[in-house]
Amino acid sequence: MELIGAELSRIEPGVTEITLPYRADLAQQHGYLHAGIVTTIADSACGYAAYTLMPPNSEVLSVEFKVNLLRPAKGESFLAAAEVIKAGKTLTVVRADVFGVDHQGERELVATMLGTMICLA
Amino acid sequence: MELIGAELSRIEPGVTEITLPYRADLAQQHGYLHAGIVTTIADSACGYAAYTLMPPNSEVLSVEFKVNLLRPAKGESFLAAAEVIKAGKTLTVVRADVFGVDHQGERELVATMLGTMICLA
Amino acid sequence: MELIGAELSRIEPGVTEITLPYRADLAQQHGYLHAGIVTTIADSACGYAAYTLMPPNSEVLSVEFKVNLLRPAKGESFLAAAEVIKAGKTLTVVRADVFGVDHQGERELVATMLGTMICLA
Amino acid sequence: MELIGAELSRIEPGVTEITLPYRADLAQQHGYLHAGIVTTIADSACGYAAYTLMPPNSEVLSVEFKVNLLRPAKGESFLAAAEVIKAGKTLTVVRADVFGVDHQGERELVATMLGTMICLA
Repeated sequence: MELIGAELSRIEPGVTEITLPYRADLAQQHGYLHAGIVTTIADSACGYAAYTLMPPNSEVLSVEFKVNLLRPAKGESFLAAAEVIKAGKTLTVVRADVFGVDHQGERELVATMLGTMICLA
Repeated sequence: MELIGAELSRIEPGVTEITLPYRADLAQQHGYLHAGIVTTIADSACGYAAYTLMPPNSEVLSVEFKVNLLRPAKGESFLAAAEVIKAGKTLTVVRADVFGVDHQGERELVATMLGTMICLA
Repeated sequence: MELIGAELSRIEPGVTEITLPYRADLAQQHGYLHAGIVTTIADSACGYAAYTLMPPNSEVLSVEFKVNLLRPAKGESFLAAAEVIKAGKTLTVVRADVFGVDHQGERELVATMLGTMICLA
Repeated sequence: MELIGAELSRIEPGVTEITLPYRADLAQQHGYLHAGIVTTIADSACGYAAYTLMPPNSEVLSVEFKVNLLRPAKGESFLAAAEVIKAGKTLTVVRADVFGVDHQGERELVATMLGTMICLA
């Protein structure tokens, strides 16, 4: 998260947002945000969202996730918005959408994630 | 790939490997390789593997992938090994395993990916 | 669909619903709807949802999907509700939720799917 | 499994096979095995494979799975072959391939699954 310049811009029970300003060194050959970076912010948003509903002193780990890359990830910044679909004692299922945001603040959906997080005591 | 120091260490029709030396700034809070980085090298290996079977002048994009994170990603280096399962004119399905490699060269499977790549003419 | 008694109960551009009454022979050992049946109605709903946005004379096929089984699939009937997230010329990405419905009509989310459909001319 | 006529044809620690003879009422509009049935036998094979490595008196449930449908599912019979990739105390990750088998016994890969199973005590 620090390496890429992302920050947790919203955090509420079961809901989080991560914001990432565009940087050329995070882009692939066409200037769009690299799929690995898109995935990183989506996964981080999912992990934090799950974590907000876990007991104190627990730890969250990603078990697995699936990402659909929907459009070229272009934008001045990127927003990963995650929400918990089902919180469980052990496993929590989370969905995240990643948006490219242009200079006028217009959002375009560029990727969506569905993932499973585990709570470690 | 350059940002993180990964390199394509093997490339044959339908099969590729990507190698990544460990770096502390690619790790998460426990010192293991960040899931986003694990995913990035797996996705890149899948993309190149699909690309080897596509016609000249085509371009490859990741449509979607699923990753299972199996163990803490520890190692002195990491190896993402991808192989095409089904090559098609439009879509190619690829599997990748990511291994942590210790100082003796012993490999441990840390993640596995199943993904779909698309060929753009 | 006929074998299991499911029917398309709603169809609009990019949105569909499939309804399935409970039947004991569709259940697994604990009396809940079998995961394969849950998946079948979700996949069918996704396919139809994608199809509504495709040109005449095209055909839809499932490329891949991921399902999270969230709770035991209990209910007097089941509802799979699908919506297109991104429609493309070739690929369409669809999300579906499957609900168990009790005798009072109360819905409980039992599974969620994220899948990719392809349009064949 | 009984409804569709599938049977567990091989079971060893971490490895299982399920066999399903073709039946017209399990097919979709083109006469190929319905994706939901392909998924059902793959999921069942994964569940049993995980179960072979779990302690006595435990129970196995599918947490989630992803399927790639690679080719039209044609054959006189179908074989779902599953193997455990990583067995854990709580979660077990399993891979399955589904083959169509023709009258000469030739196999063709028609689908592949990657899934996560949970052990309930």
